[in-house]
Amino acid sequence: ANLVLLPGDGIGPEIVESAKSVLEVVAKRFGHEFQYTSCLIGGIAIDETGDPLPQDTVDACRQSDAILLGAVGGPKWDDPNAKTRPEAGLLRIRKELGLFANLRPIKMFDQLADASPLRPDIIKGTDILFFRELTGGIYFGQSGSGEVDGHESAYQSMVYSVPEVERIVRLAAKAAQGRDNRLTSVDKANVLEPSRLWRRTAARVMADEFPDVQYDVVLVDAMAMHLINRPADFDVVVTGNMFGDILTDEASMLPGSLGMLPSASLGDGGPGLYEPIHGSAPDIAGKGIANPLATILASAMLLRHSLDLNEEAAAVESAVQEVLADGLRTADIARGGDSVSTEVMGQAVT
Amino acid sequence: ANLVLLPGDGIGPEIVESAKSVLEVVAKRFGHEFQYTSCLIGGIAIDETGDPLPQDTVDACRQSDAILLGAVGGPKWDDPNAKTRPEAGLLRIRKELGLFANLRPIKMFDQLADASPLRPDIIKGTDILFFRELTGGIYFGQSGSGEVDGHESAYQSMVYSVPEVERIVRLAAKAAQGRDNRLTSVDKANVLEPSRLWRRTAARVMADEFPDVQYDVVLVDAMAMHLINRPADFDVVVTGNMFGDILTDEASMLPGSLGMLPSASLGDGGPGLYEPIHGSAPDIAGKGIANPLATILASAMLLRHSLDLNEEAAAVESAVQEVLADGLRTADIARGGDSVSTEVMGQAVT
Ligand SMILES: CC(C)[C@H](C(=O)O)[C@@H](O)C(=O)O
Ligand SMILES: CC(C)[C@H](C(=O)O)[C@@H](O)C(=O)O
Repeated sequence: ANLVLLPGDGIGPEIVESAKSVLEVVAKRFGHEFQYTSCLIGGIAIDETGDPLPQDTVDACRQSDAILLGAVGGPKWDDPNAKTRPEAGLLRIRKELGLFANLRPIKMFDQLADASPLRPDIIKGTDILFFRELTGGIYFGQSGSGEVDGHESAYQSMVYSVPEVERIVRLAAKAAQGRDNRLTSVDKANVLEPSRLWRRTAARVMADEFPDVQYDVVLVDAMAMHLINRPADFDVVVTGNMFGDILTDEASMLPGSLGMLPSASLGDGGPGLYEPIHGSAPDIAGKGIANPLATILASAMLLRHSLDLNEEAAAVESAVQEVLADGLRTADIARGGDSVSTEVMGQAVT
Repeated sequence: ANLVLLPGDGIGPEIVESAKSVLEVVAKRFGHEFQYTSCLIGGIAIDETGDPLPQDTVDACRQSDAILLGAVGGPKWDDPNAKTRPEAGLLRIRKELGLFANLRPIKMFDQLADASPLRPDIIKGTDILFFRELTGGIYFGQSGSGEVDGHESAYQSMVYSVPEVERIVRLAAKAAQGRDNRLTSVDKANVLEPSRLWRRTAARVMADEFPDVQYDVVLVDAMAMHLINRPADFDVVVTGNMFGDILTDEASMLPGSLGMLPSASLGDGGPGLYEPIHGSAPDIAGKGIANPLATILASAMLLRHSLDLNEEAAAVESAVQEVLADGLRTADIARGGDSVSTEVMGQAVT
């Protein structure tokens, strides 16, 4: 298989390197051959080409079977007056490859149970799979500046069409069938017109195509509450781009170990993009202490969703469980105890 | 002073009644005279007049010194095909009275410390004052339906103008000066055009008018995380309408006692509107067991912000502390222990 690596900025190169060694061991052990092409994205791409997503990168990704991304961004490219930003590369690759579904599993690792900021009785049993719509909504709506009563103003439009809602709801509902058979759709239908279209469309898809799946609807503000006081009640959750951005980040705090959480962005056919949830952590970049496990778990998702290598994916995931059970911790999950380097952690998994 | 009461739906009438008795005792004890006018809003207003905000209500509010609201909404009015909804009344009264600033204090009550879903070491010392912009943003942007590639679509526009940002940032910065002198502005400037205008404008106001206030900026997704793993780090937080809706509801879970949290919506001059954060709780309506303390604390905010009666406000607040210290609990904060009725709790405060 043909894999594109997009190390990006900050700790990106270190953690992608670590995940690549794990993929290499998988290839050897299970008799596969993976080709790797490294391409530029984000801040480093701006520095070298002026463009956060050079055409070469897009071309290579299009021809690949799957993509593994580190992280993009950092203070160096944060100037509000800059012509472009690292994040623009991320938004454009999602759109160019049609990656309309962002999957984020939020799960407690038993070995890290005491890391959660929530009381143990509340977090216990939490296992949510989020589906965030990723190529629509206000992120890609028309924007610009204007005048309101003679004063400068700026706008950006939240837009959803029926097929955009249908396809993400279908994916989420199918995933629910393979889990606990429950789906929650999150919107703000009491205020927003596109949320009303979302709610109507989702209800129709569920009634017509998934009558067996237990389905309910929650307002985004209420969902922000429920995630804190009863996170264990949810199975699969589907929502729009902006709400998904906020809610999945909120949810990512629940296990108390951001450095453990992967995500996958999928389209219709075509390559998927896999990455850790966490950012580029410029403060610890180059120190060799970043936690590679989220990226390693992202590569397990890659094996499963893009290469259909389920056994291999499961092997990686249980290797991660084992190193945790053995007591190995990078600094971010060590809670002040002994910690190991990115390299040692990566080697331990292989 | 001339007060308008808007009991609304569900438990609204019970908790407003309870807060009114407290105001009556304050009036008697401190030698004031309060006149009350009760008006319709929300579902009950739809039932009786077809309009969730009848013109009589608007007129009475305009002529008043302050407004105390219970809650609106309930399953009875949730039909997605209904011509109007209870919430429309709430949105319209905010706009009609120019209530552009929603203040939400999030504070632990020492007596209820073990109610928080967060670990005690994380929640300790949390004391945040949110300023949510309330009459702009996507809530009031242009909306409608259209076609995208021949498919039905719907849109709604997020818009902010410079003066809208200036006035809410000023209010929030002034409040910070009376507290710990720190202000955090929350936006999504890496993606949204109106957030970039928000960030630029806020930075200018802070530099020009509040150079003494410690000021920083956080992205909305990051803020959703910080509220869970380091809530005690924030003092005053200012943000737009939609982000404020989500973040203040998230934050309202932190103390673990939603039934204790009041809010105030203020404009430029004119009457302010005071209400509990919680909803109309239709499941317990009419049972006489709702917690009236949030509404009573809202009436304390009313005394302070609209009537300038600081001593009276403080008296109400310490009376609430005392009943908690005495061990009185309504069912929602009793954690399975003994509980008292709305009426007993209200009487105990007076
Ligand atoms: C970097 C930013 C544009 C991006 C987003 O908001 O989508 C990030 O927060 C994410 O969730 O992947
Ligand atoms: C009822 C609804 C329209 C309202 C809002 O979203 O503003 C509510 O959630 C609130 O926060 O007061």
